[in-house]
Amino acid sequence: MSAAKRLRARMAETGLVHIMATHSPLSAILAEEAGFDGLWASGFELSALYGLADMSLISMTQHLEMLRAIAGRTTIPIVADIDTGYGNAINVIHAIGEYERAGASAVVIEDKTFPKVTSLAGDGRQQLARVEEFQGKIEAAIATRRDPHFLVIARTEALIAGLGEAEALDRAQAYVKAGADMILIHSKKKDSGEIESFSRAWTGSVPLAIVPNAYPDLDASRVKGLGNIQMMIYGNYGIRAASTGLKETFRRIIADGGVQNVHKDIVAVDEIFRLQKMRELRAAEARFLR
Amino acid sequence: MSAAKRLRARMAETGLVHIMATHSPLSAILAEEAGFDGLWASGFELSALYGLADMSLISMTQHLEMLRAIAGRTTIPIVADIDTGYGNAINVIHAIGEYERAGASAVVIEDKTFPKVTSLAGDGRQQLARVEEFQGKIEAAIATRRDPHFLVIARTEALIAGLGEAEALDRAQAYVKAGADMILIHSKKKDSGEIESFSRAWTGSVPLAIVPNAYPDLDASRVKGLGNIQMMIYGNYGIRAASTGLKETFRRIIADGGVQNVHKDIVAVDEIFRLQKMRELRAAEARFLR
Amino acid sequence: MSAAKRLRARMAETGLVHIMATHSPLSAILAEEAGFDGLWASGFELSALYGLADMSLISMTQHLEMLRAIAGRTTIPIVADIDTGYGNAINVIHAIGEYERAGASAVVIEDKTFPKVTSLAGDGRQQLARVEEFQGKIEAAIATRRDPHFLVIARTEALIAGLGEAEALDRAQAYVKAGADMILIHSKKKDSGEIESFSRAWTGSVPLAIVPNAYPDLDASRVKGLGNIQMMIYGNYGIRAASTGLKETFRRIIADGGVQNVHKDIVAVDEIFRLQKMRELRAAEARFLR
Amino acid sequence: MSAAKRLRARMAETGLVHIMATHSPLSAILAEEAGFDGLWASGFELSALYGLADMSLISMTQHLEMLRAIAGRTTIPIVADIDTGYGNAINVIHAIGEYERAGASAVVIEDKTFPKVTSLAGDGRQQLARVEEFQGKIEAAIATRRDPHFLVIARTEALIAGLGEAEALDRAQAYVKAGADMILIHSKKKDSGEIESFSRAWTGSVPLAIVPNAYPDLDASRVKGLGNIQMMIYGNYGIRAASTGLKETFRRIIADGGVQNVHKDIVAVDEIFRLQKMRELRAAEARFLR
Repeated sequence: MSAAKRLRARMAETGLVHIMATHSPLSAILAEEAGFDGLWASGFELSALYGLADMSLISMTQHLEMLRAIAGRTTIPIVADIDTGYGNAINVIHAIGEYERAGASAVVIEDKTFPKVTSLAGDGRQQLARVEEFQGKIEAAIATRRDPHFLVIARTEALIAGLGEAEALDRAQAYVKAGADMILIHSKKKDSGEIESFSRAWTGSVPLAIVPNAYPDLDASRVKGLGNIQMMIYGNYGIRAASTGLKETFRRIIADGGVQNVHKDIVAVDEIFRLQKMRELRAAEARFLR
Repeated sequence: MSAAKRLRARMAETGLVHIMATHSPLSAILAEEAGFDGLWASGFELSALYGLADMSLISMTQHLEMLRAIAGRTTIPIVADIDTGYGNAINVIHAIGEYERAGASAVVIEDKTFPKVTSLAGDGRQQLARVEEFQGKIEAAIATRRDPHFLVIARTEALIAGLGEAEALDRAQAYVKAGADMILIHSKKKDSGEIESFSRAWTGSVPLAIVPNAYPDLDASRVKGLGNIQMMIYGNYGIRAASTGLKETFRRIIADGGVQNVHKDIVAVDEIFRLQKMRELRAAEARFLR
Repeated sequence: MSAAKRLRARMAETGLVHIMATHSPLSAILAEEAGFDGLWASGFELSALYGLADMSLISMTQHLEMLRAIAGRTTIPIVADIDTGYGNAINVIHAIGEYERAGASAVVIEDKTFPKVTSLAGDGRQQLARVEEFQGKIEAAIATRRDPHFLVIARTEALIAGLGEAEALDRAQAYVKAGADMILIHSKKKDSGEIESFSRAWTGSVPLAIVPNAYPDLDASRVKGLGNIQMMIYGNYGIRAASTGLKETFRRIIADGGVQNVHKDIVAVDEIFRLQKMRELRAAEARFLR
Repeated sequence: MSAAKRLRARMAETGLVHIMATHSPLSAILAEEAGFDGLWASGFELSALYGLADMSLISMTQHLEMLRAIAGRTTIPIVADIDTGYGNAINVIHAIGEYERAGASAVVIEDKTFPKVTSLAGDGRQQLARVEEFQGKIEAAIATRRDPHFLVIARTEALIAGLGEAEALDRAQAYVKAGADMILIHSKKKDSGEIESFSRAWTGSVPLAIVPNAYPDLDASRVKGLGNIQMMIYGNYGIRAASTGLKETFRRIIADGGVQNVHKDIVAVDEIFRLQKMRELRAAEARFLR
């Protein structure tokens, strides 16, 4: 069974999958071990790992290389963040081929324009692709995928662009019409009211996905209560957790003039060896090295 | 002044530089901010980031790409771990050209053979390159560097191979004769006696470097007391710190069924934005986007 | 002297530099040996090498990797084709940093929009960036370069978009005002009249560059007569020459059922060895392998 | 049907497959169009494309990237040249996983040591891996492949190392015992006698492969007559053909001071467009761009 098929089966079975953002095979292995249902190949986290802003500075090549490395070390499905699809519908066709071959089970494409339009009017609508244009991208993605279970998830930024719930719902319906398998509805409001309202108003034929960065209090039990959100993507927690560990450890080593204290408060080297599968390699050495 | 020249100046000025292992621009930026004198482009940490054992599975290309990305986001000197130099003296020539162009200020080459010799006898000497062979590599590195301040650091594994202090000292002297700028003396003993003894017995004309992984209690004040160790490389603390943060955070999100609690105990997204230099980018947008 | 400074000196000295498109270190080495003044790190040729259309499918990472490999094996200056700069002025800032570090001496940025706007009206102006927007990109590039000799060449597609000579001249003047070091004026007309007319009408303070793909008859002697064109970029001849050789040789091997005839009509393996610098490597082996 | 299965079927059907060396998607597309049965992802050709000697300077990462790009643009099976397997049996395990995922249908592993042993005695045997060591590599490769049709081809350098036919036959039999699917027998003799003699003496249960670089006169009809050679790999003809075209074209442009003559003697730009599948892309634009 392909990983994409497994992702669909898991959603059907549990009603809500938990997808953790990853920036490396290491964080991905730890997420799989922790029990997440899938991985979010996050543009934000990878940009941050490279010390770069999440402004299309990381290339598709860099993103694919990391995704491929992650796919090679984990077994749970990977949902790839492909922003606007790296250009127009032609770029989307190229991207879908590459991401599917690299091991992704799903992609999220968003309806922003690239690069940001500099507008005098500042009309939010200008920041979003025209509906028909974005429908073309979704149709191109659907027509390109080889595994019919591969998910094309359409993300609308209508709420963030300040266009209101009606426009968000209209766009979401239009994207479903174009073939989208799920709708990711995004909000930057600090409370979850906007998302909950959208969820209640949603009558479309496909389920919803959310990224509860701004409104962390919307937990799984409340999400399940809403009934039509089947995917929660935890968007930047991994890179923040790693940064927290790095920052504190580095500060202490400098303060202590050495590692004499800090080494007791971080995982032992043996734990890193375990994650590197050293035991399996030792067994392979015993079997094949002569 | 080149970064390599600054590294030499810093050693001369302070008598002991502190070099933190890094696996990414993010960890490198945090190490620079914490106050380390330089960065260790670590094969072990990069392998671990990729979920792979440190057994020459990561390629020179992957190591160079990460080093280049790190050099582009930091200002402190980078010491590159190049293992055995990716083959023989010809591979070393190729590697030195690539690492210097990628932004390294120094390389550490070790006197092991690649790949590991499978021996019936288990004689430690078999695991090490012949002295003349390794001298050839050092001479090749010295002849290839373009910046005369670029440091070629020879690492001997003689103590770890169980060949004793006399062999370690002989090899170190031979490597200095071939042009090595520093000697990295490595030990896996859990107390620092072996290293301290080597340091006291060392009469060579170049300073020493150590990697206090196995003997964390050998801190800066004790190292300074030894008099001839001028570089401490903290070899795997960054990746262990990051793993600690990731593991604990992932565990809690699964346990909590959401991010409602954990988000308070890790750095805020704003801290990631700061590391990504979002403020500078906003200023650039104001200046150049029209 | 930096390669960028050498490129400027060569232009001043000869009045016209000849820049050959390259898609690999091999083609670059051959172009340098043939006597070209510089290399064109061509998006079109690299896309073709990868069997992809020149529609922003090749990423900046792939282009940089090839440029870096070329810079490592040649000594003549490299002019990089960076299309629209991979997005807006922020992407240009990132790109300039990367291309300069990778070894480019100059970049050409063009005033098209990315990705192509789908327009009902088909008005050519829509395909071009607004003048102020493109000026922002040029200013961003100028502010970012570290070597003041690094050339920022602005390419206008006004003639190709059918906007006429007056608009092309206005745009070119505006780009010079923003800091452009040269103007690349492009035409797809099969005769060179459009280019010659532009050249005669040009009163700007910087010289011009051309890419005589569509009008091969405009040779160096006629270009010199025009007086203000100082750079000729030969845009797709290398990849066409390589394809010609490959196609004919493959056809013959299949027809002959072997290589018994064809091997006499292509360069000998020894010539490949020479290009790989095998003689220098044999000398290095004799010196350093022990 | 997997490409690996198709390769086996083709061998069974025709008795002899013709495999053309490739260094890029472009040369691969042309080879497929010319009618070759498969592609040789050649270390020599890729090294030459990068202007580097074929001395393990190109990394596995670079080789995989090109193979992946080739696999993405062609449909015929790819046989990957993996030299000695990038180290020991552990490196082979890693390599097989990567090459199979990248799209290879077969690998060729050779029984040389890496890096070259510097020997006083100059005994050829020293340049070859011990038989049991190499058997371990083959067994590791066989145990790692996921597609049972994926071919593991063992290449012996015994003839080139001057060890004679008996040793070559013994080694080949030992490699078959370890699981090798085919034996590649290599010779540098200018006449094909050595290869023909080996072929006649071969009684092993698997077919042979050859690389007729040194002895181009051994064509398909003579090979078929031998009866047990089922794969001919044309090892460096593509890169030589491309170099021939590049060299001659560059020479003429410099001599002519322009492209006014040469453009008629190389393939037209339209042919490059065809190879880039511009027609399919125009159709996709018409369908999906709105």
